[in-house]
Parts: sequence; C-alpha cells; structure tokens
Amino acid sequence: MIVTFDALAARQWTERVGSTRRIAFVPTMGALHEGHLSLVRRARELADDVVVSVFVNPTQFAPTEDLARYPKPIEADLAALRQEGVAMVFNPSAETIYPSGFSTYVEPPKVAAPLDGVIRPGHFRGVCTVVLKLFQIVPASIAVFGQKDFQQSLVVKAMVRDLNIPISIVIAETVRETDGLAMSSRNRYLSAAERARALCLSRSLREARVSFDSGERSVAAIEAAMLHELRIGEADGVDSVDYAVVADGESLERLEEIGDSAVALVAARIGTTRLIDNVILCGDC
Amino acid sequence: MIVTFDALAARQWTERVGSTRRIAFVPTMGALHEGHLSLVRRARELADDVVVSVFVNPTQFAPTEDLARYPKPIEADLAALRQEGVAMVFNPSAETIYPSGFSTYVEPPKVAAPLDGVIRPGHFRGVCTVVLKLFQIVPASIAVFGQKDFQQSLVVKAMVRDLNIPISIVIAETVRETDGLAMSSRNRYLSAAERARALCLSRSLREARVSFDSGERSVAAIEAAMLHELRIGEADGVDSVDYAVVADGESLERLEEIGDSAVALVAARIGTTRLIDNVILCGDC
Repeated sequence: MIVTFDALAARQWTERVGSTRRIAFVPTMGALHEGHLSLVRRARELADDVVVSVFVNPTQFAPTEDLARYPKPIEADLAALRQEGVAMVFNPSAETIYPSGFSTYVEPPKVAAPLDGVIRPGHFRGVCTVVLKLFQIVPASIAVFGQKDFQQSLVVKAMVRDLNIPISIVIAETVRETDGLAMSSRNRYLSAAERARALCLSRSLREARVSFDSGERSVAAIEAAMLHELRIGEADGVDSVDYAVVADGESLERLEEIGDSAVALVAARIGTTRLIDNVILCGDC
Repeated sequence: MIVTFDALAARQWTERVGSTRRIAFVPTMGALHEGHLSLVRRARELADDVVVSVFVNPTQFAPTEDLARYPKPIEADLAALRQEGVAMVFNPSAETIYPSGFSTYVEPPKVAAPLDGVIRPGHFRGVCTVVLKLFQIVPASIAVFGQKDFQQSLVVKAMVRDLNIPISIVIAETVRETDGLAMSSRNRYLSAAERARALCLSRSLREARVSFDSGERSVAAIEAAMLHELRIGEADGVDSVDYAVVADGESLERLEEIGDSAVALVAARIGTTRLIDNVILCGDC
C-alpha cells in the first residue's frame, strides 16, 4: 500500500495506474470504523484498485465546532486500510490542501441550503471545496460516499453534475451497530450513558419507517412520531434536536404529503456531541 | 476539424487523443479576431493538437451588460479555426453548460476582488465557473489565455492552483492593430469616430510605459499621466473611465511606489462600449 502526503505524487500514481485499471476513490476524514470500511469494500467491488484519502478538512468545520478534538488515529487507520487491500492512501497536511494565499472556494448547489446548511454555515462550502480538490488530485472513475451523510451525498452528486467532474458517485448504505446506532467517528466522543441515549436517533427513524409502512403519508404526523421518540431533554433522550424531518429525497425540500421520494433525517445533540442519521422512506434517492 | 456541441463527446475525444498526444486548449467566446488566432498559434507551438471552445458565457455578464448584442459569427469563427489547423471545436449551447437546476458556482480567488471585480459584480464568478467546467470537459495539458484580460489571467491561474486543476496556464501577449488598439471582439461595436477615440487607451498605457522607463516610480504620477491621455469627456477622448491604475502584477493590490512587479491597467467607456487594456511595466507577471 502506497501512502503519500504529496498531491502531485497522488495524481501521478492515479493517472498512471488509472490508464489501464479502474480506480475507485473513498474520501474520508480518518478515524475509520466499519462504516468507512464498508465503503472501501464497495469500492473494491466496483473497481480494480481503491484509493482512500484521510484528511480532516478544516474548512468544513465552523469555528465553534469540534475540529480540534476530532480524532486522528492515523496508524490504526492505515493498518485497517492495508488489511482491506487498499492500493494508495493520500494523507495530506492542511498546508498541502490549503497553502498560504489559498482563496478559491466552491459555492455549493441549492440542495446544500436546508438542514445542515442552516445549522452548520459554511460546512458544505468546505465539503464541496475539498471534494473538488480531491477529485482533481485523485482522478478516479468512481467515488464512494456513505448514505449516513445523506445531504452531503446529494450535495456532492449535484456539484459533480453541475461542474462536469468526470467521476461517478456511488452512495453506500449506512452501517449500524447491532443495536441500530449508525456508525460515526463521533460516536467515540460518547460516554456509556450518552451512548445509550444516542439510540433515540435510530429509534426515531425506525418509528418513521414503521409509520410510513403502515400507510401514513402526512409529513407532520411522521415528524411528530420522530420527535416523540427523540425524548428531548428527558433522562433517556437527546439534549436537543437540530432537525427531525421528512423531506424530498432529491431536493431536500419540505414536503406536506409524501409522494414518490422521501427521506427522514435527524440531527440531535447528546452532551457536546452532534449526531446525524437518516432513512430513505421511498424512492431511489 | 471536429465540431461538437456535446460535452461527453468533447471529453471522450480529448481523453482518447490526449492519451498519446499533448493537447492545448483555447477557451473563447467566439467573434474571433487576430488576438484569438495568436492564442491558437501559441497553443499549436506548445502541443500536438489544439482544442478551441466557442461559448458566450451568460454567467459572466451582468444583467445590464452586452450579452444580447455580443456577436456570434459562428460560421466565420469555424472557418478561421479550420484554417489554423484546430483539431476540435467545442461549441455548446447555454442549456448544455447550464442545464435546468444548475446551482454550483466557483467563488473566485482574492485577486478577483479589485478592478473588474468591483465594476462587474459576478463577472469573475461566471468566468471561474465556466472555465472550471470547460477544464473538466476538455482535460487538456495546457490552456492558453490572452494577456489583454490581465485580471482574468491572474484569476484563472489562482483558481487552477487553489483547486489543483491539472492544467498549465499560459498567458499570451496582447495583439494590437497597427495603430496600437488592443484587439477585442468588442471593437466591432465602435463607429469610425469611436474607433479613433479608442486609441486613448493604448496611448495612456504607452504614456505609463514611457514614464516608467524614464525612471518614474510614483504610482500617483504615472496614474495622473494615464488619466491625462484618456481625455475624459473631451471630443477626442473617452466618455468615462472605470479605472486607470498601476497595481501589483501578482495580487493587483494598489501600490504607492513601484517595486519588482507592476502592471498598468485601464478600463474606459466610449459610447456604450467598454474597453480594457494593460501593459506590464516590470516583473514577470
């Protein structure tokens, strides 16, 4: 497994190998868990070689967010990627990606505006900018992202389409712990008690799913059921909710009534940790 | 010469031919004149094959600007490019470049802020967005731009560096009529009387050059000499001036005193036509 922090080396490797083999790319912020590794396995199914980037992108964190404490277990990450047969890891420094004088950004597509676009100003501008840069540095045929960051996956797909970036975006299903908690690098912030409370998120989505499956099509009714499961402020609930909504699965626009395409999304805080999760109710988002 | 309005065909052609041959790309808005053709010739010197795009980019025009009247002599343009031995012309529709739902833009680098960044709000956002898209559609090794649009050349170079776009930017010298007028597609808007008055621009730059060469290093003094030559509001002068300045040749920041790198830039209006021109006083901008 080649590990490089050099952008030119990463591009030259990708161009050389990519001239005869199909390359799939998995951009990550490291602190890898089974969710990430499932993306790598999906990438291996789709291509001859897999490239993974490990980069905690400062521009997608607001000043108030958890950039400083974001975990960076690079040795463990590299060992896990080696185990998965990854061909190349791009692990740049912040100075490589954002050298002095850097000042060009991507203004994200419309689908970046609601939900996390409201709660985390500048987040998707940072995501789009770094993803575009990574796609130039690692010109793979395919890139695999996780459905756990559902809005991000729509934002990246829209950016790639709008800017004609020659890469296919594949969205892989969320991997969950056996009790339903969506895997996230941020789960390691949780104390045992918080970990138990975090189950409210997946429970609220399961409730949305059950409600939809039993024929409910009123968004207000499903959202009420989700909120109920989140138990805001209760001893066994989350501390606060950023959103718990049912939205159009392509535009993320608010729905009144569920039609062809809908997704339930939740973002909630437990202690100082913010967690997100989602479930597709219908449509092939 | 292949002519296509299809983005996928343009990319596939470029990828196929580019796998064995060096390709240079000249993005244009058509209405080609000797200035454009000099870029094509420069591109031919630098590469095996030349690709030219002809696209009047709506997003770089403000609502009040001359998009509607911008000349589109596509048959003459194609004939001229055929004559120059161009291998492929990409001539997309506005709908191809900006399909329904399009909403991702490039937020331009810092060097886009002064001068035309002030006078033409949104202009460089449109330029950066279309140039990034064109570079994805036509993944050439080299792209050639004209020095006549000096700020644009700095903006494109900064964007390419900041976003890691794998293309080398070459800036080719401005081509002038024998009397000094910089070639521009907008020159064809000028009446004979306006054409005569338009010489004020190149005269003001020549004055800046002479002043600098005679040892003047005060920016205020050179700018005063430039303004004098522009003869604002006089019968043989320009009608108004957007700017007539000496700036740092890399950042375009205002200078007091000329140091290692400086460029004199002018933008002025004659009737309803806005013309720009510049001269590098020192440094290898």
